Amino acid sequence: MNWGEQVAARRQRVYEQRPLVHHITNLVVTNLTANVTLAIGASPVMAYAREEVADMARLAQAVVLNMGTLTGEVVEAMLLAGKAANKAGIPVVFDPVGAGATPFRTRTAQRIIKELHIDILRGNASEIASIGGFGGHTKGVDAAGAPARVADMVKQVARDLNTVVAVTGATDYISDGERLLAVDNGHPLLTLVTGTGCSATSIIAAFRAVEDDGVTASTAALAYYGLAAERAAAASQGPASFQVALLDTLYNLAGEELARGVKIRAL
Amino acid sequence: MNWGEQVAARRQRVYEQRPLVHHITNLVVTNLTANVTLAIGASPVMAYAREEVADMARLAQAVVLNMGTLTGEVVEAMLLAGKAANKAGIPVVFDPVGAGATPFRTRTAQRIIKELHIDILRGNASEIASIGGFGGHTKGVDAAGAPARVADMVKQVARDLNTVVAVTGATDYISDGERLLAVDNGHPLLTLVTGTGCSATSIIAAFRAVEDDGVTASTAALAYYGLAAERAAAASQGPASFQVALLDTLYNLAGEELARGVKIRAL
Amino acid sequence: MNWGEQVAARRQRVYEQRPLVHHITNLVVTNLTANVTLAIGASPVMAYAREEVADMARLAQAVVLNMGTLTGEVVEAMLLAGKAANKAGIPVVFDPVGAGATPFRTRTAQRIIKELHIDILRGNASEIASIGGFGGHTKGVDAAGAPARVADMVKQVARDLNTVVAVTGATDYISDGERLLAVDNGHPLLTLVTGTGCSATSIIAAFRAVEDDGVTASTAALAYYGLAAERAAAASQGPASFQVALLDTLYNLAGEELARGVKIRAL
Repeated sequence: MNWGEQVAARRQRVYEQRPLVHHITNLVVTNLTANVTLAIGASPVMAYAREEVADMARLAQAVVLNMGTLTGEVVEAMLLAGKAANKAGIPVVFDPVGAGATPFRTRTAQRIIKELHIDILRGNASEIASIGGFGGHTKGVDAAGAPARVADMVKQVARDLNTVVAVTGATDYISDGERLLAVDNGHPLLTLVTGTGCSATSIIAAFRAVEDDGVTASTAALAYYGLAAERAAAASQGPASFQVALLDTLYNLAGEELARGVKIRAL
Repeated sequence: MNWGEQVAARRQRVYEQRPLVHHITNLVVTNLTANVTLAIGASPVMAYAREEVADMARLAQAVVLNMGTLTGEVVEAMLLAGKAANKAGIPVVFDPVGAGATPFRTRTAQRIIKELHIDILRGNASEIASIGGFGGHTKGVDAAGAPARVADMVKQVARDLNTVVAVTGATDYISDGERLLAVDNGHPLLTLVTGTGCSATSIIAAFRAVEDDGVTASTAALAYYGLAAERAAAASQGPASFQVALLDTLYNLAGEELARGVKIRAL
Repeated sequence: MNWGEQVAARRQRVYEQRPLVHHITNLVVTNLTANVTLAIGASPVMAYAREEVADMARLAQAVVLNMGTLTGEVVEAMLLAGKAANKAGIPVVFDPVGAGATPFRTRTAQRIIKELHIDILRGNASEIASIGGFGGHTKGVDAAGAPARVADMVKQVARDLNTVVAVTGATDYISDGERLLAVDNGHPLLTLVTGTGCSATSIIAAFRAVEDDGVTASTAALAYYGLAAERAAAASQGPASFQVALLDTLYNLAGEELARGVKIRAL
């Protein structure tokens, strides 16, 4: 199978297996990421209480930890859910939103990476640079001052942390420390809607739930998502109609049409 | 008046009386349910703090308690608001999201039902089965493994708990333990947007605020909502444009057009 | 420059300088106000944890404090962020959602105004009346029973509190206690979407970040926003398509077209 066929096959598996993805995510994107998860055919559950996160994580086929609006209690819930998932062999995808922006976020990201086994780490270039010790500066939760050689950094951080790293941007890079892939699908309107990075993480988690290889899962998810964004942008008048079209397109895009549109390169 | 005319009359009353509906609801649907409440002509207020929930409940004409993203503090706030509403004779509508999925949720649902007088209990079949002790299994917060004879269960749970029970699904069932009604309006796209069940609960609460009979209020609300979903589906390209069309249709649907489209059966 | 040109110039500055606006806001509107901030070309960050709010506020060019869904912890976070912003000379815009509705909200609004220097206070007539001691009654978080002479009240409260006050409604009024301006742009559909007042506050904050005069910033922001609402209403079928069109229009509206449409009067 070529990459296009592989992407379409994984998207089909999500649709057929309808994996349950447990999210502990931020207040800004809770609704959007639940709807993205539904639109692609998976099943979301958002649960935060320390009293139940371990139980909920064990019911899921993948767990998303997203630190966009951290509090002390949410960190505790993330660690409980993550440990339960690790113990049960359920993949954990971590989105370190805003790492590098404040000491609290940087410290929390490092703690989560240290105490949990993270299957896939998804962020923008400056977040991953901050975690990997590559410097850079995070302006709020948006990327800024990212190193020029993002691809090299992705591979290095993946090797150092022994995980799959997926960095999204104009070009997305995915690596497990050995393999390095680039996805050229996407559209600038993604930067004008809040939670589009978090949505990428949710889709990666749903693909990872049905595909054991984290590099394949992440690459397929990001190509599918980026292509949907391209199609949606062509049908929209601004960021809000783009968001509506993006979810509709994720729902409709599959098969041949998906396979033909993906742009994936091995580096 | 036939059922169609009754539904249209209740919808008109909501529009004219603009009841205030106090929600203590989950993080996923807070925005959507506030917008649904506004779209039908009622007035939402979302307030969670223990310091004010009793005051706010007393200002309202109906109170919604929805346990989608429970925490210990939210449970406490629900009990404070519910007791204040009970004391003041303000109807309380309870949505036990995810009951059966984790012990924490099942326990909390039972505690709320025990400590408060619930006027209307709205859930999907597996949530109500869990509360009523009919077994079944909840996958995340979506229904699964629901018993075949949902209608009988609805009537039985209503009788056991001495409340009105409204179960939504392909067909909706409403009972107070004596009367049993079925609503055949609705559309499968409702299952692909998060919070559509919670939105049904908000509409039921607004109708209950202007109609003392809980069976009539629930039945009218669900027929109106289901018909709006049918119309919206015909005008949409996927789940996100469906959600936009659903709110627009709720805003516009009234009078003759509404009366003619509802499908209600007495069982 | 006439007012139209001034509005267009401030809108252009926001686009060019992309100010970071730190929000501590309510659960209902977090997503919407982040998207509004992005749509106008500014950069939002939503952060609530006591551990980081002071750090985040210092990174921002303006801070929004919105008390829509208060809890004791959020109040504490608002005070920490506000004090850090005050010390660093970063403008603070306060939205006292629901002041007057419950004693807790009224008390909290007064505490924030007493302990912080507020650059701009944005609310509806009844909220500002409650804070200014003009009586009136708040129904939930919507305006009701507002005094007839809103314009006079705005000027008086601005003088008493030594801040800029911006009251939104069918006509918006802005005053610093000396100058008094009215904005006639806007559309009734704004009252049928939750968070449109909070969105006005976010836009005011972004404009204030690039314009030191609070009266000019508030007036320009509200005229731009109101004109966008007029255009969006003309292209929508109900409240949900209106919301989509509103954000798209905010994204697209600029230059000559903006300058020609604003309706601002000095009183």
